Amino acid sequence: MLDVSLIGTGGMMPLHNRHLTAMLVRYKGSMLLVDCGEGTQVTMRQLGWGFANLDYVLITHFHADHVSGIPGLLLSLSNYGRTAPLTIVGLKGIKRIINSLRVIAPGLLFPIEFVELEFGTSTGAVDIPPTKKNSCDNRLSQEICLGDFNIRALLLEHSTACAGYSLSFKRGGKFDVERAREQNIPLKLWSVLQSGKAVDGFTPDMVLGAPRKGLKISYITDSRPIAAIPEFIKNSDLLICEGLYGDDDMKEKANGFSHMIFSDAARLAKAGNVKEMWLTHYSPAFKEPQSHIKSATTIFKNAKAAYDRMTTTLLFEELEHI
Amino acid sequence: MLDVSLIGTGGMMPLHNRHLTAMLVRYKGSMLLVDCGEGTQVTMRQLGWGFANLDYVLITHFHADHVSGIPGLLLSLSNYGRTAPLTIVGLKGIKRIINSLRVIAPGLLFPIEFVELEFGTSTGAVDIPPTKKNSCDNRLSQEICLGDFNIRALLLEHSTACAGYSLSFKRGGKFDVERAREQNIPLKLWSVLQSGKAVDGFTPDMVLGAPRKGLKISYITDSRPIAAIPEFIKNSDLLICEGLYGDDDMKEKANGFSHMIFSDAARLAKAGNVKEMWLTHYSPAFKEPQSHIKSATTIFKNAKAAYDRMTTTLLFEELEHI
Repeated sequence: MLDVSLIGTGGMMPLHNRHLTAMLVRYKGSMLLVDCGEGTQVTMRQLGWGFANLDYVLITHFHADHVSGIPGLLLSLSNYGRTAPLTIVGLKGIKRIINSLRVIAPGLLFPIEFVELEFGTSTGAVDIPPTKKNSCDNRLSQEICLGDFNIRALLLEHSTACAGYSLSFKRGGKFDVERAREQNIPLKLWSVLQSGKAVDGFTPDMVLGAPRKGLKISYITDSRPIAAIPEFIKNSDLLICEGLYGDDDMKEKANGFSHMIFSDAARLAKAGNVKEMWLTHYSPAFKEPQSHIKSATTIFKNAKAAYDRMTTTLLFEELEHI
Repeated sequence: MLDVSLIGTGGMMPLHNRHLTAMLVRYKGSMLLVDCGEGTQVTMRQLGWGFANLDYVLITHFHADHVSGIPGLLLSLSNYGRTAPLTIVGLKGIKRIINSLRVIAPGLLFPIEFVELEFGTSTGAVDIPPTKKNSCDNRLSQEICLGDFNIRALLLEHSTACAGYSLSFKRGGKFDVERAREQNIPLKLWSVLQSGKAVDGFTPDMVLGAPRKGLKISYITDSRPIAAIPEFIKNSDLLICEGLYGDDDMKEKANGFSHMIFSDAARLAKAGNVKEMWLTHYSPAFKEPQSHIKSATTIFKNAKAAYDRMTTTLLFEELEHI
């Protein structure tokens, strides 16, 4: 089971009734946070999943509404007694930015491990000029595996370097009891083989079927719509995508600010063949996103205008049929 | 008229139902903010006084719960179109701290002017060892005048260097119409003289009575109770004072963490002969401060356990009798 909560849905500045956009994902006892603006720790507290299992933080870009909550979050983790390392992933510069913010969060009880993303054959994310559109090879990072979270990043097009993320949760083949018995594999080794590891001369392929369909979540904000996105988000079970405004007549303004409107996001969701899309990162001036949802659903039916702490549990395919 | 709002009452970490402690003061078209933690801009928005007239920010100390909201506030001011300078006052190091936080708030449309406090005959705030208690001369800053806000700072005793502040609002003498007529002072000069300025050979003392009682607000957080406080807050119309916990049996714990409990604050308020005290900076674990108010009121009657955006208007003495 994979729990996903969009703990905030605002863009630019925090409001008392709308936290800044951030996503919390919980899987196999570990939590991963994407973005951490001013107040993200507050909505995390409201959600009630605790802080103890937060092991990974992904930052999309260095605009304050996506990263300004880091010092407070780090201090809270320390106050709650964390000693285990926290991994923070981001574009080139993430270590410098976080350490600069840590001027007010020194003396933490836990270490921070940084992962700076590298894209394609390029030497680094920020080296790619924004005019070089749709160069998907250079835009895509290698897969990073953090525990059971398999992470890829796509270089988006925003007013500053910005990464979209996809999280993949892989699922091994089904354990074939008959084949294990036929090969006289000792019972005590079954669980090791099932977890994908070889043991005592036996290998997983001797007892496991073909890998089964996993789960995929994609998170795209902030960006103007670009052609590289559909391939990146392809077949996602859930797409979180920005929609700064709802109305089509705001398209020029939104795109001009390197953002999207609802219909931009819907076209990407449709092209990417995702199962469901949640819209987020609303402008502070955009008061009732839900009332504009038709701008998206006429293009992509399964679009929803998300609200703070909108939460779902994604199930692996077989489990859905239990 | 002087408006005061305690826009947050929490300590250590922001909660969804309690913002971090900060005070906003509005006087003669200008606003002054004391402290700016994570979410302070949110509660400012809820208060509804706007951002356009925010000219001064005072920071008590560099713990994150008092300063982490600065990047977000600066960006919001810039987004709202501010071009006028913003003055930020704080202890030695304020410029370095704010500039380090500004790694995520570059390119503002307005300049920041820093005022670094100097205490007594010492070369700077942080040079005074915390063991040198009650050395009031060295603990007190010179008066700083920012527009109509006359500010003094007191070096408190916390786990890091921390300043308490008092804001004084002075009131000149009453204009004596009879004397002005007797001296044949042209009518068009009256308003200039009334504002305290000399003009065309006439001086204010020719028409103004003795200075009248002004108003005074004091703000004391974070600190253990120290003997220098009563003199500093003396005769305040309003004292904002920390009370991390309410119960007397928490005194050792609170003082050990360089904080106060309600009764500590009440003794200071009584010794300082203040008119009214609002308690604030509650521990996140302290759920119902109002239910513990007797710990304070048995010592100092006019104590209140404040809540977010508790607001009052202070009037100059004569106006109270209109």
